[in-house]
Formats: sequence, structure tokens, C-alpha cells
Amino acid sequence: MSSIVVSLSSFGAAEVGRHGQVWCARLALAAGADSVEVRGELLRDSASELPALAGMASVYSSPEGLWAEGGWLDSAALGRGLAAAQALGAKRLKMAIGDFRASSHGSLWGLKVQLSETRIELLIENDQTVSAGSLPALVTFFDAAERAGVTLGMTFDMGNWHWLGECPREAAAALSRRVRYVHCKGVQRLPAKWVAVPLADSVAPWRAVLRALPADLPRAIEYPLVGDDLLAVTRDAVAQLRALP
Amino acid sequence: MSSIVVSLSSFGAAEVGRHGQVWCARLALAAGADSVEVRGELLRDSASELPALAGMASVYSSPEGLWAEGGWLDSAALGRGLAAAQALGAKRLKMAIGDFRASSHGSLWGLKVQLSETRIELLIENDQTVSAGSLPALVTFFDAAERAGVTLGMTFDMGNWHWLGECPREAAAALSRRVRYVHCKGVQRLPAKWVAVPLADSVAPWRAVLRALPADLPRAIEYPLVGDDLLAVTRDAVAQLRALP
Amino acid sequence: MSSIVVSLSSFGAAEVGRHGQVWCARLALAAGADSVEVRGELLRDSASELPALAGMASVYSSPEGLWAEGGWLDSAALGRGLAAAQALGAKRLKMAIGDFRASSHGSLWGLKVQLSETRIELLIENDQTVSAGSLPALVTFFDAAERAGVTLGMTFDMGNWHWLGECPREAAAALSRRVRYVHCKGVQRLPAKWVAVPLADSVAPWRAVLRALPADLPRAIEYPLVGDDLLAVTRDAVAQLRALP
Repeated sequence: MSSIVVSLSSFGAAEVGRHGQVWCARLALAAGADSVEVRGELLRDSASELPALAGMASVYSSPEGLWAEGGWLDSAALGRGLAAAQALGAKRLKMAIGDFRASSHGSLWGLKVQLSETRIELLIENDQTVSAGSLPALVTFFDAAERAGVTLGMTFDMGNWHWLGECPREAAAALSRRVRYVHCKGVQRLPAKWVAVPLADSVAPWRAVLRALPADLPRAIEYPLVGDDLLAVTRDAVAQLRALP
Repeated sequence: MSSIVVSLSSFGAAEVGRHGQVWCARLALAAGADSVEVRGELLRDSASELPALAGMASVYSSPEGLWAEGGWLDSAALGRGLAAAQALGAKRLKMAIGDFRASSHGSLWGLKVQLSETRIELLIENDQTVSAGSLPALVTFFDAAERAGVTLGMTFDMGNWHWLGECPREAAAALSRRVRYVHCKGVQRLPAKWVAVPLADSVAPWRAVLRALPADLPRAIEYPLVGDDLLAVTRDAVAQLRALP
Repeated sequence: MSSIVVSLSSFGAAEVGRHGQVWCARLALAAGADSVEVRGELLRDSASELPALAGMASVYSSPEGLWAEGGWLDSAALGRGLAAAQALGAKRLKMAIGDFRASSHGSLWGLKVQLSETRIELLIENDQTVSAGSLPALVTFFDAAERAGVTLGMTFDMGNWHWLGECPREAAAALSRRVRYVHCKGVQRLPAKWVAVPLADSVAPWRAVLRALPADLPRAIEYPLVGDDLLAVTRDAVAQLRALP
């Protein structure tokens, strides 16, 4: 049975700004979620917020790329992410690869060393950028990492592929064995852009995509949770995700 | 060469309500269709309508699920469907599986016995519900039925998969050998829902889906036929479907 | 590295009508394109325009089908296309197959003879018609041509498949080895029709399609280039296409 996570970004930057992630996390748990994903980009005062969130979060999501512009391993960003996950008591740190490129392969050894010093599990996410979200970029990265002895799991965001013109089913087929965590994001197309929606409202063949991934992985809500009764909205969203096969 | 069927639901509940299925069936045949699919949910007085439709219908579509809520085989519903098809002189009865579940497997023997007493062919349709329209539900069902010695054909609705977030091409690949009858329904996405449209107006890769199914099966129009000159609209729709490879 | 072509139809019939293809070609080259595709349907006075375009065009696009209505090889149309390409100094002639049918197979020998007399390379394009743009039509044609000893390359239009309800990834898988030139056309769906848009704005999984085709082929812009500063718009479009893997 999949555990259900709420990515706190689902409440929107404005709402999280008003109430803080502690309030949002409590609401998510009250709505039936098993845990939350804390968002680094939405922290206002991490020194006080992270300890207050401890015990509620299974994942810390870092807004920083693992490789900085130019292809250098950003050990400091990784360190910040690991420390935040540690402070939360979260077992997992989610990051995108950033500007990983051919010249970055040597730095995989540095990554290996840094990860050997922690029990936090680093999960690589496909984001909405070409360098860290297109399929060849990710396949190349995981292969290079494996050759360097760094076996990493993946956060599979079901929706982000559309922003890049990638086929999520092809991505699932190529990356399935890496996946440890699923961001359940449906998509709809507005004239000028893609938007995130609940899976049930998605135009994508989301059941086929989900089926192509390993079963029983933690699944996160990552689409706007909005409404007058936010608890009820979240409860419904959690229940719907839990009811999926 | 495929025979062309008009599902009488294509004329819409309001129009069928005004004119009755006999009137609609005559119109469909006058427009060049080879036969019609009579809809159980649109019958007003089956005792008089079914005999009046006799000779025009190749399929009777039952609105009842084969398995009732809770997973019990609804032999009575099946009996009603078979009787209606018999009264129509239709060779085929179309039903969805309803609430077939793990506990329902034993009742497949009952289905086998009941079907052995009729020459009507039961065709299972993928509808728009998770339990009777998602791909795993149907694959599981057909496999279980086959193991119980009940080999059933399928009505493949090309559009319904979209309502469930399923990929119609994956469904066609998985179920093609079962398919005996095709509901030719294109789809478009409105902001809040999918709608049925002619294949030529579909956003789906409908030629690829159709090609993945056996050739020369009967094909039904099942999308809104609307217009001031309903005969001309229907004639065009029939001709277009007949012209497909 | 792919060479970047601008199909002059991208500027729109009205703009081309006002300024002529020579003006448009100069603008495209000034915007960084390597060459242009000259459009037969937009020529006003080919006797003067073609020589004036000489040296700027790599492709001449004929608006005529290779096989005329009824299935007859239109040697005259082919001749006109070859002559235009010759006058341009373009190495390639792009045509659709038109009304190629079973009865046309014999005329492939005529095509072979006619092509043996020129060094212009004929590239077959998938257009938006069933007879010359659906996948079975093209597969059948290329196979028949090959059996007749005529090995032809293809212009793969990434967008046209959608107009026909074909799956571009299936088409790419089936035809990839034929492809010599790619029309990079994204698509969006308006309520009543498909429209061509830049790849970056496409709802199709265009990166997956492009990846399924041979690398390093010439790539053409063929979607509306519109704006107050047409040079800047074209420069951006060329740069974006050139930046693709």
C-alpha cells in the first residue's frame, strides 16, 4: 500500500506564506496524509521551522540544483539539503541535477563521498528544465552516476515531462527501475502553458504511466489544493490518491 | 468491409425521448447504416418498442452491469439483456462488467451456464468507470473468464479510455484479440471534461488505435449526431465511417 | 550539427505576397538560417523569382502531388518541380505522393527513369491528406517504390500526423530510416482545428518524436513567424531550433 505524501507547495506560495509550513503540514496530516514534503523555497526561517516540522516530513525538497551553472558539483547546496532533511528527521532529500554536463562526470566521486557520510537518501527529480528534466539528460546522468558507483533513486514527477515535450510513458519505461517516489501531478493545457491539476482531471494517460512505475511507492500530491474548506479539499485529494491501485 | 452501426444514443436522450428509437432507427437505416444498436436506457415501453425495432438492430446495449455492487453476478440483468436482444432479433448483447471483483470469480460458472442456453453473443464493453473501464480491470476479467472456460468478445469503445486516464493504444494492444465490435468515438477535452466527437474531430491518434484492432469489424457511430437536417448529418457520418480503411 | 532551414511559408501567404520570397529568404538568412525552402504555391513569377533565389535555397517545395487524381504519375509536375529546384540550385525537391494507389505501382518505373536523369534528390513529405499523409499510405508507397528499385528519402513533418489522427511516435518508428529532412512543426488544438506552433509551444511529445528520427538532419521551421520585428522573431526561432540536441 502506497504511503500518501502532501507536497506543501500544493497549498500555493501565498497560502504557505500566510500560514507557514508547520500549519500546512498539520492540516495535511489532519486530512489523512501519512507525511509531508517540506519545500525549501517556501521556508521563511528554517532555523525555527525545520525543527517545528520534525516528525511530520518524509521528504525535504531542495530548490537548488546539484550541479551549479557551469557544471560544478554544488557540495554546499547538497550539504544544506542534507542538513535540512536531518533537522526534519526526513529520510529523503529531493533535488534536481541542475547543470550536470559531460565535464561534471569527474565530480560524481565527490558526490559519492558526500553521500557516504549520511543516511539520508538522495532522490533525483525530473524538473521542467532541459538540462535536468529532459529524458536524455536524466538517462545520461543516471548511467554516469552508476558507472561512478553512485546508485541513486528517482522522484518521478508525472506531469513535468509535458512541459518539455517529453512522453511520460517513454520516460516511465526508461526510468522505472530508478523510481522510489512519485509526484502525482496531472496536467491540462491552457493556450499558453501547461498547468498542474489532480490526476482525475488530467488529459494525460496517467493510469498507464502510474502502472509503468513500481507499485507501492510513496505518492505525493503536487497540484493546487485550493478551496474555502481546505481541510475537506485536502482530505478528498488524499483519499482519492489512496484509493488508486 | 466493416458493417456500419448507429448507436441510437447518438441522437441524444432528448431527441430519442421525443421521437422514440423506432423513428431513430428508421432514420439511421435511411441514412445508409447497416443496422442500429438499441439502447436499453432510452426505451420507454420495451414491450412495444423492441418488437417494433426487430430486424433493424444488430446489438442491444444493456445499461446494467453484469456484476452488481458487491460483486454478485446479476443473472437477472443478464436475462433481461438476453431477452431484449432476442426480442429485437439482435445477435449481440453489449454489457459492461459492473462490479466484478476477486470474489466474483466463482460466479463465472454461472455466467457460463446462462450463456450456454442462448445463441446471443455477449460482448463486454469498456465503460467510463474504474471497475469496468480501466485496463487492468478488463484484462483481469477476461483472463479470469477464460480460465473459467468463458471466452467472451469485447466492444472496444475508442473514446472511453480517455475518461479514465488510460492510453487507448495500450488498451488496443492488450485487448485487440478480444475485440468483435468497435465504438467509434472521438474525443475532445473541454476545461472540465472529455466530450465525444466524430473521429475526424478527435484529438486522439484514432487512426493508430483503429489500426491496432482487427479489420472488418462492425463499427458504430457513438458521438452526438445533431443538426437541422438530421438525415443528412447521419448520412455524412455513416459515409465517413464507411470510407475508413 | 543540424543545418537550419526556414520554410518561407512560415512568413504567411499575406506577408510573402507583399514582399516576395526573395525578401523573405534574405530575412531568413540574416536571421541566421543556413538556407530556405522555397514554396511553389507562393511564387508570383517563377521565371524571375527562382533565379533571384538561387544560392539561398536548399529545398524546393512543390505544391503538386506526384500522382494525379486517378493514380497517374504526374511526370509533368515532377518535371516542373525538378526544373524549379534546378533553377534555384537547390539539391532537394519536396513533393507529396498525391493520389498514389494500387494501380499506380506500374508507374514507379517511369518515376525511376525520370529521377535517373537528374541529380536533384526527391523527398516525399507526409501531408495532411489521407492518401498522402496517413501512415499506411506512406508505408505502402515506400515499400512499393523500393520493390520497384526506387529508394526515396522522406521529409518528416512532425505536426501533420495530428491532422489525420495518426500518432507521430508510431510514424517516426515506422519511417525513421527513410527520413532525410524534418519539418519542425509543433501543434496545438483549437476547438475546431489543429494549428501549427513552435515546438516549444507544442502539446505533442515533440522531443520524443525528434529523438526517434536520425540525428543531424536538416531541420526546417514551418510554423507561423509573426511579429512587429520579424527579423528578431526569426532569429529567435532559428536559435531555438539550432540549440536542440
